[in-house]
Formats: sequence, C-alpha cells, structure tokens
Amino acid sequence: MMPTLANTPRRMVILTDGYSDSNVAKTAICVVRYKPEEVVAILDARAAGKTAGEVLGVGGAIPVVARLADARRANTLLIGIAPSGGKMPPHWRPIVIEAIRRRMTVVSGLHDLLKHNAEFVAAAEEHGAALVDLRDNDESDVASGEPFRRECLRIHTIANDCSVGKMVAAVELAEGLRRAGVDAQFVATGQTGMLIAGSGCAVDRVISDFVAGAAEKLVRANEHHHVVVVEGQGSLFHPRYSGVTLSLLHGVQPDGMVLVYEMGRTAVHGMEQFPLPPLRRVVEYYEETAAILHPGRVVGVSVNGRRFTDAEVAAECARVEDELGLPACDVIRHGPAKLVEAVRAMAGGST
Amino acid sequence: MMPTLANTPRRMVILTDGYSDSNVAKTAICVVRYKPEEVVAILDARAAGKTAGEVLGVGGAIPVVARLADARRANTLLIGIAPSGGKMPPHWRPIVIEAIRRRMTVVSGLHDLLKHNAEFVAAAEEHGAALVDLRDNDESDVASGEPFRRECLRIHTIANDCSVGKMVAAVELAEGLRRAGVDAQFVATGQTGMLIAGSGCAVDRVISDFVAGAAEKLVRANEHHHVVVVEGQGSLFHPRYSGVTLSLLHGVQPDGMVLVYEMGRTAVHGMEQFPLPPLRRVVEYYEETAAILHPGRVVGVSVNGRRFTDAEVAAECARVEDELGLPACDVIRHGPAKLVEAVRAMAGGST
Repeated sequence: MMPTLANTPRRMVILTDGYSDSNVAKTAICVVRYKPEEVVAILDARAAGKTAGEVLGVGGAIPVVARLADARRANTLLIGIAPSGGKMPPHWRPIVIEAIRRRMTVVSGLHDLLKHNAEFVAAAEEHGAALVDLRDNDESDVASGEPFRRECLRIHTIANDCSVGKMVAAVELAEGLRRAGVDAQFVATGQTGMLIAGSGCAVDRVISDFVAGAAEKLVRANEHHHVVVVEGQGSLFHPRYSGVTLSLLHGVQPDGMVLVYEMGRTAVHGMEQFPLPPLRRVVEYYEETAAILHPGRVVGVSVNGRRFTDAEVAAECARVEDELGLPACDVIRHGPAKLVEAVRAMAGGST
Repeated sequence: MMPTLANTPRRMVILTDGYSDSNVAKTAICVVRYKPEEVVAILDARAAGKTAGEVLGVGGAIPVVARLADARRANTLLIGIAPSGGKMPPHWRPIVIEAIRRRMTVVSGLHDLLKHNAEFVAAAEEHGAALVDLRDNDESDVASGEPFRRECLRIHTIANDCSVGKMVAAVELAEGLRRAGVDAQFVATGQTGMLIAGSGCAVDRVISDFVAGAAEKLVRANEHHHVVVVEGQGSLFHPRYSGVTLSLLHGVQPDGMVLVYEMGRTAVHGMEQFPLPPLRRVVEYYEETAAILHPGRVVGVSVNGRRFTDAEVAAECARVEDELGLPACDVIRHGPAKLVEAVRAMAGGST
C-alpha cells in the first residue's frame, strides 16, 4: 500500500525539466489534471515563463518556472515523468539535492528508488527532508484465488499498448459512476494513480510471483463498494510488460473491461518494429485470456483522440462502435457517460 | 545471474525435514537426480536411516540423516524445498543456525531471503559462514525486443500447471541433443535449474517490469549455441503465476515449445477449484500467445507419468500423440529421443 506523504497540505512543484512536451510527462499531466489545487508550479527551464496550460495542455495558469527558488510556497518536489525502465535523467540530481536542502519532501514514482541513492539519503538525513518512493513495496503474498464478494462488480481498463490513457479512463469512469449515484471506487495500480487516489500499489514494481496476489488484495480492500474500477497496466500485446498486464488481469478477475487506445498509433510506443493488432483481435484475446479464470467481457471503448480534431474523433468513435458493436467515447472530450451507461447496464438493477 | 557458491567442491546436505514425501521437495529431488556426486546426505528426522532412493525415489544409497552431526563431510546446507510463496518452515531455523555455527555455506532458493533474516546474518558474520540466496537478483532492464541471432534455435518448455517437470524436460532434452552431437545449452530460469546449470536467473523473483528483459538477457548470453533449451516457469493457466510465464515466454520468443504435463492431474496443483483445460486448448493458447511477438509452435509433449505404470504411461503417450499429432514421451522413463528428433527436424540440416 501507499507510503505516507509527509506534508499536509501538499504543495507541489512538478519536475519535468526537458520532458514537458514528451510522452513521458504523463505523471505531470495527470496530477495537474486531477489535483491542480496541490500544484504550485512546473519546473522546466526551457519553458519557464509559460503556463502549464500552454506546455502540458492542462493546468491553466499554473506557472512554469526555471528554478526551485521561483516556487517558494512549495513543500514537495514531485518527479513528474514515467520513462520506460524508470530511470532518472542524470541532470535532475542537483535539482533533487537542492529540494532536499530546502527541506522539501521529494516524491518519486521511478523504479530507481530515491532510498537506494546514497547521496539523496545522506542529504535527506542531514536536512531532515522526507523521501517518498511511490513504487516501493514489500508485497510477498501469492494470490489466493478465493472468490470476491458477488455484489461487487469489477471493471478493469485494458489496452493495446502502454501510455494510452488507461488510468484516465478508469478515473473518469469511476467519477462518472459516482455522479450517477453509483457507489464506485477507482483503484490505483500505478504511481500516478496512487497520487490521485491516495492509496494503491505500483504493481509493475512488485516481485513477479506476487503481482496477482497484490492485485487481488487491492480489489479485496475495496470490494465493499458496488463497483470497483481498477486501473490497467501495460498491454497483453506489449513485448516488455505483457506479463505485468496478465498478472493484474488474473488477480482482478474483471466482470467487465473497458478497452483504451490512442487514435493514430499503429505500432508499440517506442518499439516501432512491433505493429499493433486490429482492435477486434485485442477484444477477443483479452476476453479469451480473462476467461481462463473468470468470464469477463469488454463493455466499452475509450478512445484517446488527443492528436485529432473533434470531428475526427467523433468519426472514429462512430466507426469503432460500428466495427465492435460497443459504445465508444473520448472520456476527456465527451465525458464518460456512454461507459457509465454500459457499466450500469451490466449491473442491472443493483447499482 | 548466479551468486558465487563459496565451497568448491560442494558437498551438500539437503534439508527436506518433514517434506521429503511431498511435492514441494522438488528442489531436493532434482539436485539429487542431476548432481548426486555433490550430495552427502538428506536431512529428514522422520526418515532417518532410510536412503534417498527409498524416500525421494532418486539418489540410490545416499543416506537420510536426522542431524547435521551425522553428515560431517558436508560443507554446504541446501534448503531443499520450493513451497508456493517461498517461505521457510519455522522449525528449520535452528537447523540453519546450527549449519552456520558449523561454518557451512547455506544455499537457499526461497523467496524469504537468508540475507533478510537478521539472526542468520548475525550468526554468519560471527562464524564466518556464507549465505547464498539463489533467488536474489538486481535485474532492472526492460526487454529490448531486438531480434536474436537467426542461427540460434530457441526451445522453451511450457505447461498446463506448475510443478509438472518443465525443468526436468528441459535438462533431459538439452542433454539428449548434446548426446546426438548438437551444440545445445540448457538455460535455467529457476533456483533448482541454477544449481544444475551453474548459472541462470530465478525470474519469478525479478521485479515484474523486468522479467521479459531478464529472460531476453539469459537467451542473449547463450545465443552462440545452435540450440538453447529454456526452462519454463508456472503456466499461462495458473491463477498465481500466469504473468511470470507470459513475461518469460515473450522474453524468450521461442521457435519451438515442448508441452509438459502430469498424468492424472485434473486441477491446478493446490488450487483444486480451478480445473485444468484440455491439452489441445493448452497448445492452441500458447501458440496464439507466443505469436503476438514471434511465431512459435509446440513440437512435442513431455508426459510426467510418475504416478503410473509403464503400460499406463505408454498408452497415455500413444493417446496424446494421436490426439495432438505430436511426438510424446516420458523423458525419465523413455529418454528424450522423440523430442530430440522433433527439435532436429525443426532445425533442418543446421544442427
């Protein structure tokens, strides 16, 4: 479960220096989107003087600054990127050290744990600063395979690739269900989701034998809700992360899945030699694979249309609805109403 | 890769106390089968006075003893079990402490690492004994997805369940290929295989994001051979370990797979509420899943007939050959010749 965050209220500077315009800034983008009241500034020297809205596409007037000294109200430095493999850019080390000297809490979701860096640990001890590694965990239980509470409907976001918006779709769906009066809970399985939910487990950092067990425990801890919406990780079609995805899928045993993909992407992100399969094939393979343990079906599609116009996204959603016979929407552009209806229809009268 | 083993030559007592007759003693059974010259005794008080042959079914006259004092020639204590979840039985702690006091090297493949036990570490420092955790690793690289050397044929043992004999099938097949003059190498992916091969990585202990990367590195380190036979782990059909299996499968990208199963088993070992699928379905699903990255096909079947008579196993092999159209044999009873031929046929003239 989640390590304690030292500062309350949390007032963050989000470090994206050199990466604000890149796909790896997804941690920054999502925290700004869902926790803007906790964000004092973005730190990216190249974009200093602009706003978060201009640089990240979210966050409105939140300023982008060049130095920690330009965000004196902040009490927390958040590492705002999620690169493949989870290593920190070398030129960020002096920025982290400066934050520690300012007695700020440093929060990181990288695989390169802060607590394993002797320089950071020594500085934190000297200055009385806290280091928080969101991905750190001591999960060591295998899955029990015991059934979940029947009255709890489990929804899981799945995808054809990584970095397509599985977390966003899960957050938006859970919020949409709540607005519709359903007792729904978002369950975070990655570092950014944990910052938004305030709890969870970064399953991609768990020892592989225990990932399904960790996922099962996350669901078990929330099964008193009518609906749990569990954030997916990676993809069964990803050369690096397929096993993480499968452990999570089999640990969660979803009743329903929401397929997420990004319009226009034709190959695995960052591994262009691997083409992505047709969406129909993605749906079939996930349903077949889930059914090894529990019959779950894909009930809707979340289209990430961030690189396209309203008209293009609307046409894509119509095309996908026709092709797959499933409701499709861009949750950021259209809201999650179609997915909310699909989940309510699954649950019949009970929600 | 593998931690250094401190004593050469290694003279082991294998600790199975209370578990010799159980499925979890597979580490002991396999080390006795493939490294009998390194085994001084088995330690199991209940069976003391018997032989390994009587108690484990392998190892002939190797004695079973009640106390370390009855195996004074030994310089190494090997933890001889592989329980689900990897925890040490509490009553073994004093035996481990006694071994440390005798300055024996203690070798363990459990998830409960020796180095995380303060009592063991303090005693080892005091007495100058070495602690070796076979499952310990610092793997932190994601898979590259880069192609392997074309001239290296990759064979992988797969299964419908855990604890069916995937490692044994891989060792026997690699040995059979070598006897037939093929430059073949067994590649270990679990703690017992590592003891036999002298190298490898226990992939089920690797952080989930890095399992495919660790598997890829194991193959890369051996791709100068004409054939690599990579030990499988778990099963795509296992509620606990399916993700470990998938990461390994996608990291190895096998050209050929050998399906291993145990005759008479109808449900997941230790999780009887999950029935095992038909063998034909197992073959289809593995081929479909491997093909996401690389087309690999099942080329033979290794039947573990340990609970049945020669006649029953022969009938089973004939039945399976007929049903699946694949060569089938019990590698312990019949030797691996049929599988060797299947692999040589795949390789055409090149091996």
